[in-house]
Amino acid sequence: MQKQAEFPEAIKTKYPEQIVIAVARDKNGKANPITLGWTMLVSGKPPMMAIAVASTHYSIETIRHSKCFCLAFPSSEMADAALFFGSKSGRDIDKFAEFDCKIAPAEMIDSVLLSDAVANFECTLESETIAGDHIIFVGRIVASHISTETQKRLYTVGPGHKLGSVS
Amino acid sequence: MQKQAEFPEAIKTKYPEQIVIAVARDKNGKANPITLGWTMLVSGKPPMMAIAVASTHYSIETIRHSKCFCLAFPSSEMADAALFFGSKSGRDIDKFAEFDCKIAPAEMIDSVLLSDAVANFECTLESETIAGDHIIFVGRIVASHISTETQKRLYTVGPGHKLGSVS
Repeated sequence: MQKQAEFPEAIKTKYPEQIVIAVARDKNGKANPITLGWTMLVSGKPPMMAIAVASTHYSIETIRHSKCFCLAFPSSEMADAALFFGSKSGRDIDKFAEFDCKIAPAEMIDSVLLSDAVANFECTLESETIAGDHIIFVGRIVASHISTETQKRLYTVGPGHKLGSVS
Repeated sequence: MQKQAEFPEAIKTKYPEQIVIAVARDKNGKANPITLGWTMLVSGKPPMMAIAVASTHYSIETIRHSKCFCLAFPSSEMADAALFFGSKSGRDIDKFAEFDCKIAPAEMIDSVLLSDAVANFECTLESETIAGDHIIFVGRIVASHISTETQKRLYTVGPGHKLGSVS
């Protein structure tokens, strides 16, 4: 049976929620990673993924500038990186300079891959749509990469940015 | 370390993937549920969620007609319903007539809630965007409901529509 609830209470039932790290270069060439929980696949042929980014975030500028981004599925070992990239702003710091995270050049777009991620998807910007306090960016996947090792994906497993793997 | 992979191979790293069941009425008033894995939150204030629905699916017509939909988070007990609603077309059958699934009227929109779900979100249609072979519908959440019992959410845990709970 159902009972009415306020949205903030009801949405706590969403966990575990998948995490991605989106990376785009700003106008100075600095690659800027942001951790996002709001992401989904949106097309099979051609393959496309979407992310929702808060309108005030620096990543909005970087994605609009470079018109492409990489989406990494962080591994369960990357919780500290995910928390760092998700809590600092690229307006203030160079996140990759301040947090030790192995990166490699993307192959088809001007961005970077996270070497220790479960997978990386190189995307060209397909569209953007305003949705309330966020912008939905749709990316067309032009190259895909997976880890050479078997790894588990990272999830938000509960409120308060509690991160971990699931099984 | 990363190695290049074809997209269909690389995307197998996405699991577990959350499931929602979207319900919208068609022009004859028939409530039509569809099971979807491609969903995300897109706004906090006001609260909004998005779903991506294959362009050929009957649900496209139902959502466009009624301009609203309910999003249910099915419980881990609802795997059979999720598979049925995800594999049949509302063009051919009345899914709620053919599969026993408790429903209740929505409160703020003309749709139905799934009584045994973990949560239900009533949405008014905010926007639609074409993305490859799918349409992204954004819904503004105007009412939320949660189960009176503690339940686990249903996920796709592996390829081939393998459904289950996660922990």
